[in-house]
Amino acid sequence: MDTEHLLDEITAHQQAERVLDGFFAAAKERAGRISPSYLSLWETLEKSTAGGKRLRPRIVMTAYTHLGGQDITAAARVGAAFELLHTALLVHDDVIDLDFVRRGQENVPGVYRRRAEAFGEAPEAARHRGLSVGIIAGDLALSGAFRMLDSVTTDPFTRDTLAGILDDAVFASAAGELIDVDFSFEPGAPPVGDILDMERLKTAVYSFEAPLRAGAVLAGAGADAVAALGRFGRDTGIAYQVVDDLLGVFGNESATGKSSMGDLREGKRTVLIAYAAQSPSWTELSGIIGRPDMGAAEAERAREILVDCGARDYAQNLAADYAASARSHLDCAEVPAGLAAMLDDVVSSSVNRSR
Amino acid sequence: MDTEHLLDEITAHQQAERVLDGFFAAAKERAGRISPSYLSLWETLEKSTAGGKRLRPRIVMTAYTHLGGQDITAAARVGAAFELLHTALLVHDDVIDLDFVRRGQENVPGVYRRRAEAFGEAPEAARHRGLSVGIIAGDLALSGAFRMLDSVTTDPFTRDTLAGILDDAVFASAAGELIDVDFSFEPGAPPVGDILDMERLKTAVYSFEAPLRAGAVLAGAGADAVAALGRFGRDTGIAYQVVDDLLGVFGNESATGKSSMGDLREGKRTVLIAYAAQSPSWTELSGIIGRPDMGAAEAERAREILVDCGARDYAQNLAADYAASARSHLDCAEVPAGLAAMLDDVVSSSVNRSR
Repeated sequence: MDTEHLLDEITAHQQAERVLDGFFAAAKERAGRISPSYLSLWETLEKSTAGGKRLRPRIVMTAYTHLGGQDITAAARVGAAFELLHTALLVHDDVIDLDFVRRGQENVPGVYRRRAEAFGEAPEAARHRGLSVGIIAGDLALSGAFRMLDSVTTDPFTRDTLAGILDDAVFASAAGELIDVDFSFEPGAPPVGDILDMERLKTAVYSFEAPLRAGAVLAGAGADAVAALGRFGRDTGIAYQVVDDLLGVFGNESATGKSSMGDLREGKRTVLIAYAAQSPSWTELSGIIGRPDMGAAEAERAREILVDCGARDYAQNLAADYAASARSHLDCAEVPAGLAAMLDDVVSSSVNRSR
Repeated sequence: MDTEHLLDEITAHQQAERVLDGFFAAAKERAGRISPSYLSLWETLEKSTAGGKRLRPRIVMTAYTHLGGQDITAAARVGAAFELLHTALLVHDDVIDLDFVRRGQENVPGVYRRRAEAFGEAPEAARHRGLSVGIIAGDLALSGAFRMLDSVTTDPFTRDTLAGILDDAVFASAAGELIDVDFSFEPGAPPVGDILDMERLKTAVYSFEAPLRAGAVLAGAGADAVAALGRFGRDTGIAYQVVDDLLGVFGNESATGKSSMGDLREGKRTVLIAYAAQSPSWTELSGIIGRPDMGAAEAERAREILVDCGARDYAQNLAADYAASARSHLDCAEVPAGLAAMLDDVVSSSVNRSR
């Protein structure tokens, strides 16, 4: 990544922060006029989004600026809309997964569970209170995404197209979340293809495909460029999720910020597990994973099995294949060389990452 | 209500149904291309909204047509946006309240809990699965509300104003839901004024105030008319909720479609309970209500106490006062006589209802 691109990245990040700061400042001002508890909810929601990589706004703005877009504020708002969608989906996903911590920090349900406990509530009631407030917070972030998109200054046709892209993202991620819920209740592991479909729907569309398409549409790019970027985003997003599966089991905890036993304890249906389920080692592995009381030695044994049966290699190759497929979509006359170079970096950093 | 108004009502209802049918048909078509389970979720969500009174679309269209609006489809779409918001808020409220039945029918969580149980899942897991799918379904309906509003053909300024009104409604109802969650964890009963604030925020704004303002804005009405209708809607909505509190305890089960013991068993914080909490009878009453195993005799005793301590009379008078205050806002030069007459009917039927 050369210096010019680095400056772009920094600017994109700052612009997205500025727009999100403004959004939360306005919401807190309104909420404070209703009640101190409502203001506190908005503060908690804002805090839960802070410190993020702002991946989606940066992707929107990369596509936008390299396709000739000039209105940085408009692009930052489109990016912020996807960031708010991301916030909403994370908190509702945490409620569904009964997670009270994300990346080493208390999430919204975690904060409200702790407060309820400090207030003397029984564990079960405190837990439900945390989850309830998480549902409300997610609804606010989801509505915020649509509201943020409304604030983008553009022509009516472009605005409708952008709203359609945001809608596609919501539609896909809800389908992915539903399939993921279904998986968690099924006894065996689904085929790898079903895991990849779920990961594409649940994350790749709203995190990569939709932000890239939106950035291109806002810049006034032609249909071929928009479609090529969409295909690139889809494949990059799948590669990103496969790497997520790998990091969840083989990652360095101090880099990822989450326990490398979480996925194994939960018995999370990942590409690794789906692959291993087709191997003779499955009998042993399925007896170890999915148990909340799993110890470090059992986790280490599970990792050994995943290496020995070839699941790790398979997942690494799969991520590399999707990354290659993503790059192939950049070989398109409508994608400028500067943008292709930037997106090449995006796919590299999606695959070669430690967090 | 004379014959002309009756025809209006029927037409408004039909138009709202037509728009909602189209929305769900398109969503089901898209969902079916993703997976049969996703299609089934959309079918379940649609079914859960069917048979409603379509109160909010009818209110939007009443304001719109009587203020000179001619584009019935646009008004029906605005109304349908509020109906989808209503659907979203109900299902998330049910998840928060752990309710699996609404108006005698299984709601979305209820359907998915039953299916999970039939699949052999343990009760706790089946319950959580039902709630998880309820969260996803509510997110889809909430996004649908914004998407529906996008489909309204109007000028950019009016569209922005309408989006702001929908946003106000979401913002208020989330605040009301949060306050309601807080109430349910507090040991005593909050003051009547706090209950009324909560009911205004949680329901009155999105059910009456916002739809009336939206209908007026879409018709191009002036600021005075919009403000007068907003105030009318707010007071009508509060009266409606106070009557809800009364029906929840004193209603006829076959008319309301819900148990007249539900609110008492739950210990729901209502105007009745808040009033009774200030009376000497509270010691006895607080020992009876809020217990899931409460029997018919205890419920009858709770009703006696609520009558004897004056809580029922108080609530009835309060509803009448808000209805009168609502009507006073119609005495405004910018509100046409025909609309004032229709809205007089709305407030009457909100207060004098058995379901």
